[in-house]
Amino acid sequence: MIRFDNDYTEGAHRSILQRLVETNEEQLPGYGTDHHTTAAKEYIRKLSENDVDVHFVSGGTQANLTIISSALRPHQGVIAPSTGHITVHETGAIEATGHKVLEIEAENGKINAGQVREYVENHWNDPTHEHMPQPKMVCISQPTESGTLYSKKEFEAIRTVCDEKNLYLMVDGARLGYGLASKENDVTLRDLSNMCDVYYIGGTKVGALFGEAIVIAHDGLKEDFRYIIKQKGGMLAKGRLLGIQFEVLFENNLYVEVSEHAIEMADLLNEAFRSNDIEMYFPSPTNQIFPILTKNQMDRLSSKYAFHIWEHLDEERKAVRFCTSWSTKTEDVAALIKDINHL
Amino acid sequence: MIRFDNDYTEGAHRSILQRLVETNEEQLPGYGTDHHTTAAKEYIRKLSENDVDVHFVSGGTQANLTIISSALRPHQGVIAPSTGHITVHETGAIEATGHKVLEIEAENGKINAGQVREYVENHWNDPTHEHMPQPKMVCISQPTESGTLYSKKEFEAIRTVCDEKNLYLMVDGARLGYGLASKENDVTLRDLSNMCDVYYIGGTKVGALFGEAIVIAHDGLKEDFRYIIKQKGGMLAKGRLLGIQFEVLFENNLYVEVSEHAIEMADLLNEAFRSNDIEMYFPSPTNQIFPILTKNQMDRLSSKYAFHIWEHLDEERKAVRFCTSWSTKTEDVAALIKDINHL
Amino acid sequence: MIRFDNDYTEGAHRSILQRLVETNEEQLPGYGTDHHTTAAKEYIRKLSENDVDVHFVSGGTQANLTIISSALRPHQGVIAPSTGHITVHETGAIEATGHKVLEIEAENGKINAGQVREYVENHWNDPTHEHMPQPKMVCISQPTESGTLYSKKEFEAIRTVCDEKNLYLMVDGARLGYGLASKENDVTLRDLSNMCDVYYIGGTKVGALFGEAIVIAHDGLKEDFRYIIKQKGGMLAKGRLLGIQFEVLFENNLYVEVSEHAIEMADLLNEAFRSNDIEMYFPSPTNQIFPILTKNQMDRLSSKYAFHIWEHLDEERKAVRFCTSWSTKTEDVAALIKDINHL
Amino acid sequence: MIRFDNDYTEGAHRSILQRLVETNEEQLPGYGTDHHTTAAKEYIRKLSENDVDVHFVSGGTQANLTIISSALRPHQGVIAPSTGHITVHETGAIEATGHKVLEIEAENGKINAGQVREYVENHWNDPTHEHMPQPKMVCISQPTESGTLYSKKEFEAIRTVCDEKNLYLMVDGARLGYGLASKENDVTLRDLSNMCDVYYIGGTKVGALFGEAIVIAHDGLKEDFRYIIKQKGGMLAKGRLLGIQFEVLFENNLYVEVSEHAIEMADLLNEAFRSNDIEMYFPSPTNQIFPILTKNQMDRLSSKYAFHIWEHLDEERKAVRFCTSWSTKTEDVAALIKDINHL
Repeated sequence: MIRFDNDYTEGAHRSILQRLVETNEEQLPGYGTDHHTTAAKEYIRKLSENDVDVHFVSGGTQANLTIISSALRPHQGVIAPSTGHITVHETGAIEATGHKVLEIEAENGKINAGQVREYVENHWNDPTHEHMPQPKMVCISQPTESGTLYSKKEFEAIRTVCDEKNLYLMVDGARLGYGLASKENDVTLRDLSNMCDVYYIGGTKVGALFGEAIVIAHDGLKEDFRYIIKQKGGMLAKGRLLGIQFEVLFENNLYVEVSEHAIEMADLLNEAFRSNDIEMYFPSPTNQIFPILTKNQMDRLSSKYAFHIWEHLDEERKAVRFCTSWSTKTEDVAALIKDINHL
Repeated sequence: MIRFDNDYTEGAHRSILQRLVETNEEQLPGYGTDHHTTAAKEYIRKLSENDVDVHFVSGGTQANLTIISSALRPHQGVIAPSTGHITVHETGAIEATGHKVLEIEAENGKINAGQVREYVENHWNDPTHEHMPQPKMVCISQPTESGTLYSKKEFEAIRTVCDEKNLYLMVDGARLGYGLASKENDVTLRDLSNMCDVYYIGGTKVGALFGEAIVIAHDGLKEDFRYIIKQKGGMLAKGRLLGIQFEVLFENNLYVEVSEHAIEMADLLNEAFRSNDIEMYFPSPTNQIFPILTKNQMDRLSSKYAFHIWEHLDEERKAVRFCTSWSTKTEDVAALIKDINHL
Repeated sequence: MIRFDNDYTEGAHRSILQRLVETNEEQLPGYGTDHHTTAAKEYIRKLSENDVDVHFVSGGTQANLTIISSALRPHQGVIAPSTGHITVHETGAIEATGHKVLEIEAENGKINAGQVREYVENHWNDPTHEHMPQPKMVCISQPTESGTLYSKKEFEAIRTVCDEKNLYLMVDGARLGYGLASKENDVTLRDLSNMCDVYYIGGTKVGALFGEAIVIAHDGLKEDFRYIIKQKGGMLAKGRLLGIQFEVLFENNLYVEVSEHAIEMADLLNEAFRSNDIEMYFPSPTNQIFPILTKNQMDRLSSKYAFHIWEHLDEERKAVRFCTSWSTKTEDVAALIKDINHL
Repeated sequence: MIRFDNDYTEGAHRSILQRLVETNEEQLPGYGTDHHTTAAKEYIRKLSENDVDVHFVSGGTQANLTIISSALRPHQGVIAPSTGHITVHETGAIEATGHKVLEIEAENGKINAGQVREYVENHWNDPTHEHMPQPKMVCISQPTESGTLYSKKEFEAIRTVCDEKNLYLMVDGARLGYGLASKENDVTLRDLSNMCDVYYIGGTKVGALFGEAIVIAHDGLKEDFRYIIKQKGGMLAKGRLLGIQFEVLFENNLYVEVSEHAIEMADLLNEAFRSNDIEMYFPSPTNQIFPILTKNQMDRLSSKYAFHIWEHLDEERKAVRFCTSWSTKTEDVAALIKDINHL
């Protein structure tokens, strides 16, 4: 079985493991106060070209719940797409910290500035607005859970609404590398640092064993953030583990390199499906692709390849997801393409 | 600088790193459903000699908050020693899940069955008990934060009170290995599985990069535990990382071996301090030792060794903490002993 | 200005005020342990013809958040109609206790058994169900926020699904009196006690100054409920205030009598709108009615009557809400009817 | 049985009931937007001689949890005396909103500025302070749960520490009237508004049926407070009930008058106990007095009078509590004094 069912099937890029071995006997202070963590933060700060704070936590749900619970007062909610990870796939982690996720209907995983503006204006225009959670943050994913990307222009429009309506803008970048590396992308880390109040750079799905780098650009959100990380169980005693991994990923552009590989692989698969007239469920230019397969096509592929069933479209057809990643092997993709061509 | 300031100064036992390297390219399913995790759970289940459930999370605070919030209803509190980790050192993580930590005055890090009984009886005898959090769980650490151990007899007495008063018994075993390996210990994993409703076996401080193994013995506490892990941000996409580490630690007794080394080192230090008439603040038979040093003695040692200042006793004297661990080097201990002998 | 904008515009039925005056100097124990509260509970228990527990709290949001947070474990959510009070109008009160409200699209304020079954089956059929809040309770309103009623048959169908799927059934009865008194109603208090696990009987909108009577039928939900009331700030020192009010409302059927008056008044208004060919937005047989008015009609009525704008339908037409209540004056209704006839 | 066991044994001052009857048929808007509520707020604002915001909620626990959860970020805790109401008698209501109550050992119900300073300095001097809840608020009661009072000088000293250490100062004034009326008191409402960031004026125990007036002096704590009241279940549909009661209490000084009566009655009892050489457990100059009685004395009084057992001192003696209130009858006090004289 060759696995394309997600982008966390293998361990980590060999350089990361190697560095963990090399540094293993260094005696270092705990809780992220070591020199590797400091160096990793510095690399990210430089790329962001802004006076940002950087923190590392072990996973995406932890990043989301820590950021949101740190930023919001009890009566405030976070606007998110109906298909967003915090909306549907974190077992109510945000609600468990007391905050309602305010859903906006997504199209291809995305929401737009106009929808946000309308939602927030409806809130404030309602004479009973005190009886509804106050929208105070927008949380979107780049790339989205449907593999799509926000363009710089779309981001700017959302930022404008956030400024008008006094909202924080947060970006869940669990797969950010695959966004940065996409040929259709025009949003850099620097752009994100300029436009977001807070975002994170995913490591778990992009070459690391685990870990996400939270980047806080808004000064008001920086204070006491480490207290919140600790309280929510996100502070590793051996913070070095996260520091070392992000040091390796960002000291020499490895983060982008491994992401580019994944995109190259995805583009080949995309091309294979298209050339065989297999329609895509979402127009994804990143590492997740969503062909619509017939029952028969699925059966033929599923004997050799693991992939994810995304949505039952009708009796005969399902949208499925194939993921590539930093670890996808060229020969596995070649084999799959050959089989696609014979579907 | 040679570090004795805590037991998480290095990375991981070399066997663990080696196994991570060896297994790195295995394509595995996520979220702890891989075969390494299954194997690790099985090893622990066997040692516990009970029908327990085993789960892995990345750290101690996360283990504590996940277990406690899963077990208690909103009005219930958890009894803990005044010096317990959940009481003083987790930034209110338990309260953040809605539950009050009900402090009982500790002596040498421990509380006893009589104190628990008195606390709970006082609660129920108070005609206004509905105005106070209901005690429903006892959480103690083995070894304690003062390095001391509960004997089997002491555990049994607490268990008896828990049975009488309908309380859950939970054990925070962040340093459990160092307890198991202590010459004064008479409590096995099997005993813990018999006597506790839930406990965890610490990996972070005992040979692993990170990770704790939660063992649930009480059937009523098993249901839906994975939902809670996910909600609290404790479920790693690459659950394999925890599975592999605990597989290595428990397949061939490595967990106990590395713990025994730490205890051996601590015993040597203990002996050195004692033979130089340096009093101990706590009677610890485990890997944390707490000599009482004069300002002058501290100055002389602190130029070469990192250790932790535990408590200011008076103008002249402080209780300090030296930790050994799985990674403590014999030559470092020898050097320190030499310097102790010349204080 | 004659107010029809809601059903809490006046104080309380004069019998309640009179009883408060008469009993004012009685020296009574606090926190709902007085004989009036005991008597009130007994009246409700008799009407329910079941072995229920009864508790009083001051308002609807408090009732909802206390019940739901008492019943659910942290990872569990409550299914509710998209138009339900807990879904849209309580400032995220349920989320603030940690639980997600799981919305189902409502029609005329109602959801049906089939929708609930489908939602819950989708949850359990999803292989990643542990990543989503677990549906554990259904909360519907009788009458709904749209003034509509669930029939006994509809309730029974939902109860059947709840039994199949292991869900609690809760009913928000903030306006229950107006449901019981409706000519279209076939659901009694006894039926509710048979079919629900927990529900509440609204006093605030039905003759009382304030107060709701929570009725717990499911034995598993009874334990320690008073602790939760106290913790959430719902336990009045002078619990007598709630006890006395419900004693007056239930000792001689006053609750139903005043509700019948409101329904009589609403039926007259309904008839007036209909006979003038004014369409209704919801088919409400209770005390809230929702005519669709043109801008011109609104202007003419709004100079003399307060009513609530419910929804902007188009440039020209809005759905509005007129409420009657226990306190609606016959002459006010007559005046309004006259003006409707001249629209 | 004549009740001295608490200060909420009767209903309300007759003027309040009378006003509720007189205003009963007024048709008013809901949720505290009526003219009575506006008037009541204005009376209190005038007495405070500051630009304060005033809000009404139904009880003390609700006031405390609403204020504290509105003011603090998740990692912050509230310093309170070990005997404070939020510390011991609200079923963990504060913890249920996520915040730890940070206990300071009380003497006669009070803590002092030096203790607060030491606590906060210890926090910030600890290199691991991020691992402990951050002290951000001080919550004390005036009068305290032991009947004692803070002097203006003591308040000023605590205020100074709060300024130095960036803490909010909150006062629980559940029995504030009895403090204001005490002969030993030198703290006015104006002083409280100058020195506190937020406090509340208790109505439940001082003449009202129920209700507390929250006074917010710190501008930073004013924003969106009504959202939080609604979310926590504290916003009455008929907000008028609270408005009318506080209007009556504050339009003509009734609040102080009824409090003075209670103090007069308490002073007579105090004098009676003292003249019979019965020692007091706390030096209370307010409406709660705490004589130390022998078993024999208790038996003789308990046949005719209800009082509260406060603490078991030894085999023979208990500290008990007698409360007077706005409703205490002169003849009841005379009878009790007679019996005290014959103990």
